[in-house]
Amino acid sequence: MATLSETLGEFAASFRDEDVPPDVRTRAKALILDAVGIALASNRFDFAERAFQGLSALSSHGGAAVIGRKERLPPRDAAVMNGLLIHGLDYDDTHVAGIVHPTASAFPAALAAATMAGASGRAMLTAFILGIEASARIGAVAKGGFHQVGFHPTSLAGIFGCTLIAGRLFGLDAKAQAMAQGVALSLASGSMEFLEDGAWTKRLHPGWAASAGLTAAMLAKHGFIGPRHAYEGRFGLYKSHLGPEAAHCEYGLATAGLGHVWELQNVATKPYPACHFAHACIDAALTLRNKRQVRAEDIARVLALVPKEVITTVCEPIENKRQPANGYDAQFSVPYLVASAFQHGRFGLAELEETMLRDPTVLALAKKVDYEVDSNSGFPKYFSGELVVTLKDGRELSHREHQNRGCADRPLTMGAIRAKFRENAALTLDAARSEVILQRIEALEACERAADFGEALVG
Amino acid sequence: MATLSETLGEFAASFRDEDVPPDVRTRAKALILDAVGIALASNRFDFAERAFQGLSALSSHGGAAVIGRKERLPPRDAAVMNGLLIHGLDYDDTHVAGIVHPTASAFPAALAAATMAGASGRAMLTAFILGIEASARIGAVAKGGFHQVGFHPTSLAGIFGCTLIAGRLFGLDAKAQAMAQGVALSLASGSMEFLEDGAWTKRLHPGWAASAGLTAAMLAKHGFIGPRHAYEGRFGLYKSHLGPEAAHCEYGLATAGLGHVWELQNVATKPYPACHFAHACIDAALTLRNKRQVRAEDIARVLALVPKEVITTVCEPIENKRQPANGYDAQFSVPYLVASAFQHGRFGLAELEETMLRDPTVLALAKKVDYEVDSNSGFPKYFSGELVVTLKDGRELSHREHQNRGCADRPLTMGAIRAKFRENAALTLDAARSEVILQRIEALEACERAADFGEALVG
Repeated sequence: MATLSETLGEFAASFRDEDVPPDVRTRAKALILDAVGIALASNRFDFAERAFQGLSALSSHGGAAVIGRKERLPPRDAAVMNGLLIHGLDYDDTHVAGIVHPTASAFPAALAAATMAGASGRAMLTAFILGIEASARIGAVAKGGFHQVGFHPTSLAGIFGCTLIAGRLFGLDAKAQAMAQGVALSLASGSMEFLEDGAWTKRLHPGWAASAGLTAAMLAKHGFIGPRHAYEGRFGLYKSHLGPEAAHCEYGLATAGLGHVWELQNVATKPYPACHFAHACIDAALTLRNKRQVRAEDIARVLALVPKEVITTVCEPIENKRQPANGYDAQFSVPYLVASAFQHGRFGLAELEETMLRDPTVLALAKKVDYEVDSNSGFPKYFSGELVVTLKDGRELSHREHQNRGCADRPLTMGAIRAKFRENAALTLDAARSEVILQRIEALEACERAADFGEALVG
Repeated sequence: MATLSETLGEFAASFRDEDVPPDVRTRAKALILDAVGIALASNRFDFAERAFQGLSALSSHGGAAVIGRKERLPPRDAAVMNGLLIHGLDYDDTHVAGIVHPTASAFPAALAAATMAGASGRAMLTAFILGIEASARIGAVAKGGFHQVGFHPTSLAGIFGCTLIAGRLFGLDAKAQAMAQGVALSLASGSMEFLEDGAWTKRLHPGWAASAGLTAAMLAKHGFIGPRHAYEGRFGLYKSHLGPEAAHCEYGLATAGLGHVWELQNVATKPYPACHFAHACIDAALTLRNKRQVRAEDIARVLALVPKEVITTVCEPIENKRQPANGYDAQFSVPYLVASAFQHGRFGLAELEETMLRDPTVLALAKKVDYEVDSNSGFPKYFSGELVVTLKDGRELSHREHQNRGCADRPLTMGAIRAKFRENAALTLDAARSEVILQRIEALEACERAADFGEALVG
């Protein structure tokens, strides 16, 4: 009987560009567009600069492109850096069932491996899609268990998707692809300890998975032998990392529907740089302001209805939430996010800048925001939210977003993703250069050399 | 209160070359000599060739030396390869309490980092010693727990030693060293799944730890922020990887006696390329043959007395052990190892070659070897062994090795380590070139540039 690695390896080696439906391909390019926009924005931040300096100091020769930067890095370090840029702002996409941020590892892996292999844009895109299909499923097997025991599936599961991506672009056959996953098991890592003190290591995980995946694939290509049962083995991914909790795993999910169900279509993109749980409330505020003419200065009180499961994350302790200490706190505060949306009529990275966080008008409005449990919430399928606004003249208006925008059943439109890209890219590039990048991404399949595509992304 | 990372970071940043006693320094060079000899021998084997090809294909520029090879690799890949060469034959050293093979990761890390940093041989040696002190202790905290749940402490604990080594050579201060260990936690890996089918991934672990440790250190040098509680945190090294078993950890061991107790002195070197548990029996056979003139053809029966705890590893199933299927099986067979030692008067890598394994004289003698439980064994402190030989003329001779040679209380002499080095090196180098390497290693502290030292090791 085939192992899970062998089934995944067979799929990776045999599926063809033309097996991917056009709508999946289009959505894949949208995920890449979204990721590249975030990466361009990330380049403004200290974490990106420090990581780039560290990686640059590790090697004397470059060669591969980093999004938004003129300098080159060796391909695997470029993958580390690109992953960090995509994931660094907690603004990138999520496969909810797998609890992985799949594009942040899959795109850097595909770009670096395709560049090394001299592959076409079309081949790179197919490999990227393959990686998303794999890592989303491998994450899903654990049913949320990795987070509970302290591992970050974005890298711990993501490395296997990256390994298959690189293996496909490096030309591995099915057997070598299976071996490569066994090698990847020995390189798989990702600690959740950053949660305890806000360390930067989470940002490093997806790119590290990409880099390590390239290594695993290339070793296997040259005949290096990995264990056969990378997933279901006695010391495979799940039993070793989950311990007794591995009993809850559903191994069949690792390969369920491969090639006809496209998990990539279930990848959610974020409309706002904030906790997923708060998106519906931000959209409700923007609808009330922009479509129903609620003005911030007219508001007497705002009542947010939220799923009870999210209260400790985005509503409590309410006094702290009303006065966030930093941008990260603000991203997890319904009062701040709602107030900012009412005040500015939008919410993006600009609204997380230090000066914005100190704006007395927004903070005064945040004090007027309270919350109650939403008895009709669609949680956990939907991160529902509703706002009930009482105006100073006594009128009451409300708006409900039952399905949070960006979820799999209500994906961001192409237009919304383009707008998000432009807004993010504008933080580091002028509009003309951003537009060239947008066009290159949307025409990815026409690109003959992935290396040229990478060059276009430096801006 | 300082975290364990902070205490280790402070030690790494502040201790001076002259704080290391001369005998520790001398022993450290002996460990390096032993490791380099094994690495030279490894170059003959397929796993080394395939790994080298894979690593070479990942980059277009080299620069750093690989033991016994003319070609260069980038520093971190050279570290991966050197670790693989040292650990690849299961012939390298062991810190028994930590259950780590410390030199296999620490020496490649020290060589690569010192080469990058332009450090001296003396600085490199001090950093190497620091790394051994750290990784042995970090392994010891788990009290054997990592193996039970499927992780390989040689890399999982080894990466922290490597990070401190690189951090010291890159010039990190105490605070950056502490951060670097937090970053390393996110890169720490090493699966025991290879046990299930004899995959090659175990060989990859120490070098991968070295390479990842260099990355963690350089990121932290440039200000990348890691979590403070890399070890004792809620999702730190032990609690995340050991799960409920983490309750048995003794955290104080991570820093106990730092700077005045030298764990490097407890690192055991192997006299034979075979399972540790069989060494006493091999030595007993050689003593009986070489000192008491027992000739193989005169033997009617051999009874091996072994600790009961090792029987399933090296004695049972006895029929299989008497006819090993391959070199790896032979390394774990008391009957084969004892027979070969009686036949050839020595035991080394040559006795594991395919033709040797098929030698009918040795196999006939192996059939005469039986075992019983040694009721006076010193296990687990000593891997005791005794042989009772009945000759065809009815005489009975016996020899006991209560303390296995090579253990911490009975270390291999400098002469024995030199002899082992020469024998291993002879598999790929002529004697004159081996002797130059031996002299360079023993004069390491006189070397002004570690890079030159690395060049000398290519042979």
